[in-house]
Amino acid sequence: MKKEDLLKNNTLFYFSEISKIPRGSGNEEKVSKYIYNWALERGYTVKDDKYHNLIIKKDNNKSKDPIILQAHLDMVCEKTPESNHNFKTDPIEWEIVDGFIRSKNGTTLGADCGIGVALIMAMLEINDEMFPPIEAILTTREETDMAGAYNINKELLSAKRMINLDISPENKILVGSSGGFACELSLKVNFVEYDGEFFELKLTNMRGGHSGNDIDKGYGNPLILLVDLYKNLKKSGIECSLSSIDGGNSRLAIPREASIKLGLRNKNNIEKCKKIINEYSYFLSKKYNTMGKNLNLSLSKIDKCLVLTEIDELRTINLISLIPNGIFEMDNKFSGLVESSSNLGVVKTQVDKIILTEEIRSAYKESGEMILEKIKILSDIYNCDISVHSKYPGWTSDKSSKLCSKAEEIFKSIYNEAPIITASHSGNEVAILKDLLNLEDAIAIGPTRLYYHTPSEVLDYASAIKFEKYLEKILKEI
Amino acid sequence: MKKEDLLKNNTLFYFSEISKIPRGSGNEEKVSKYIYNWALERGYTVKDDKYHNLIIKKDNNKSKDPIILQAHLDMVCEKTPESNHNFKTDPIEWEIVDGFIRSKNGTTLGADCGIGVALIMAMLEINDEMFPPIEAILTTREETDMAGAYNINKELLSAKRMINLDISPENKILVGSSGGFACELSLKVNFVEYDGEFFELKLTNMRGGHSGNDIDKGYGNPLILLVDLYKNLKKSGIECSLSSIDGGNSRLAIPREASIKLGLRNKNNIEKCKKIINEYSYFLSKKYNTMGKNLNLSLSKIDKCLVLTEIDELRTINLISLIPNGIFEMDNKFSGLVESSSNLGVVKTQVDKIILTEEIRSAYKESGEMILEKIKILSDIYNCDISVHSKYPGWTSDKSSKLCSKAEEIFKSIYNEAPIITASHSGNEVAILKDLLNLEDAIAIGPTRLYYHTPSEVLDYASAIKFEKYLEKILKEI
Repeated sequence: MKKEDLLKNNTLFYFSEISKIPRGSGNEEKVSKYIYNWALERGYTVKDDKYHNLIIKKDNNKSKDPIILQAHLDMVCEKTPESNHNFKTDPIEWEIVDGFIRSKNGTTLGADCGIGVALIMAMLEINDEMFPPIEAILTTREETDMAGAYNINKELLSAKRMINLDISPENKILVGSSGGFACELSLKVNFVEYDGEFFELKLTNMRGGHSGNDIDKGYGNPLILLVDLYKNLKKSGIECSLSSIDGGNSRLAIPREASIKLGLRNKNNIEKCKKIINEYSYFLSKKYNTMGKNLNLSLSKIDKCLVLTEIDELRTINLISLIPNGIFEMDNKFSGLVESSSNLGVVKTQVDKIILTEEIRSAYKESGEMILEKIKILSDIYNCDISVHSKYPGWTSDKSSKLCSKAEEIFKSIYNEAPIITASHSGNEVAILKDLLNLEDAIAIGPTRLYYHTPSEVLDYASAIKFEKYLEKILKEI
Repeated sequence: MKKEDLLKNNTLFYFSEISKIPRGSGNEEKVSKYIYNWALERGYTVKDDKYHNLIIKKDNNKSKDPIILQAHLDMVCEKTPESNHNFKTDPIEWEIVDGFIRSKNGTTLGADCGIGVALIMAMLEINDEMFPPIEAILTTREETDMAGAYNINKELLSAKRMINLDISPENKILVGSSGGFACELSLKVNFVEYDGEFFELKLTNMRGGHSGNDIDKGYGNPLILLVDLYKNLKKSGIECSLSSIDGGNSRLAIPREASIKLGLRNKNNIEKCKKIINEYSYFLSKKYNTMGKNLNLSLSKIDKCLVLTEIDELRTINLISLIPNGIFEMDNKFSGLVESSSNLGVVKTQVDKIILTEEIRSAYKESGEMILEKIKILSDIYNCDISVHSKYPGWTSDKSSKLCSKAEEIFKSIYNEAPIITASHSGNEVAILKDLLNLEDAIAIGPTRLYYHTPSEVLDYASAIKFEKYLEKILKEI
């Protein structure tokens, strides 16, 4: 298919138009203004706000209950090392390759969620007396702090049902997502001089991953594993002392690497040490080197440093051993879906304390609270300071959703197959808006996009064209 | 199909023959003797032992490496309340219904693992110069303590590869299973008099399930949930005191019910109590009443009783809150498979202690040890006695198994589809025998059986007939 032909499709036309406007998260003003004017020209009611969110309303058939269509204006800005694209100033130019649309310049395409925005523009332009009143919400900063969604002016909206267009692939209907919060533990510790040789034990090149979506993949947490290995050294009778433990960059990611610094009392023990480390390395390789990864466990000599007091070493080791990490419970409605989990994302040794940061996620807030309760008990035992922040709501899975039934029925009629109805173990704007606007029903659907958040991001254009018909039919029939 | 026609198939004929001999676990002597004589008559080498295990050898093509075929002689004895079947004396009579063979008298059929035994008899009777030497192992007491497998005389066996025939359905190839062990914690506690009213808080009719296979189903553990609810009562400011906590029957099952007895200081608080319980009940129903179950949370008045001292109540509550329960890690080779887990199966309040019993399972023994390490730290914190017992080995998943590749190839050629290659999160005889006999390669396969361990057990006879060809072809080609 040629570009000119694709642009005859209204959705792809608008996708192409907004791709011309740089719109990384936090830089949505221009695209917001463009769509604001576009809506005004067409006589729709439109409001913006200081976050550059847009609310666009079109009446259609006023005897029907209104519906919210929702997507986000911003996009993730990632590019290949070779790319000289400037996300502040340059348009995203695109090309067609093997049935997909992709960026010409080694960047994210922004189909996440530009195609959702374009679909909403296309739906607004359709004059169909079967359509219910549409209240479109176009948010900003979805890819960073979701500040747009949090600050939508709810007074402007009356609809109690919503279709979000921010997911992929086309055959999925999302009917729930987990809420979450961050939990930070601060363990005060004291350091002392130590007489011996000093080493750094490093575990690198583990798989890592998303703290929600990948928590059930069995990728392993290098922080937990290094502590386990350190305990093995101690149990084997080697006299050593812990100086520090560090690993991970964000509570939202499963760590890929971690490091322990330690003092070894007797340098004659180094061979015994290495033997245990090699055995552990063999176990780690067997268990985790199954995904094209080649993890590395290394021991290297370092300069003399202070070590934790004996009691503080024990507190540190035991706290990291006991802190909830991984799946707390699976969902019993959707096979294979995690209901609640926690991820020990970061451990940092500072001058007088060790900081542990976790992300806790759950579909039911009660499950998240149960995980937090465990952490609070540990915090009491080990005398930590605890803080909870960055809370966002969940959106409890509901298979009985009317929107879902209708979308399912129409999907079957168009695609001749059943859609996959599921929920997700990561957060999204639906939950925030459902909470804020007291929505009674919400689903998320979207055309097929691949490799989002990377420079390989592509949009399946045939899917986008077919999806436009699917969405149009849903709007007619609800 | 008529019975006479089915009996023309050698496997089904032998299945029918052994079904005539009562063979519940521990009662295998007669069936063992029958097959012993059958083997002798045919000139095979056969040995039995005091467990009534059988080892039967037939040379076939001696230039090939020998192979072990393995199944168990015993069966689970379950019947409907109406059935007057006597498992000690009565044969299992069977009938044909809708493509399945089932018991005529409302009992388990014993296709688990009678069909495996019959397949081995059929394979032994085939004279084919392509067949490798066969070393058949027929074990006893698989359904109880696996004492047969543990006591196989390894001196009699030389093969280093094995096909176990104890799984279902036909399109599955099992290449691994978890090992496990029991862990018991005993928490010494003191009781004191309490002035107030006394109640029992009971959570019943939860889903329960197998502590390994169902640990990822999100069925919930009533012991953990009741403790959480009790903490909610305390947090709301209600003055109450814990008298006892009990629940579960076996560490091998996820508990279906649990009960807490408590003293309530001020009977005016009973309405506040009930309100919190009702709210919790609503949450539980929403989260867990999704599987045709109708869980029940009730509060009823009981006679005056002693309660735990304040400190012992806290130790109990915190220990149950922190004890590892559920998935520890998922497998990263087989999507959706649990690698390691623990199940708080039983809590019992006794006169001077509270006993917690867990089953810990893991594909890698190191993971099981990591779970045990957590429990040991808790045991130190709360000053418990800890004991570990009933250990059995795991059988580490190995997709590179030669037997698996061959079975996969032949399955595809016969069934025109790909088999599902996976591992299991529960124990089996393969792991025990692989350990005992230093086997290099093992898989488990079997024809399709349904509802085993229940009076609804059926055997898909078409599957059994086709599977016979599949197994025969594997033996020719390895």
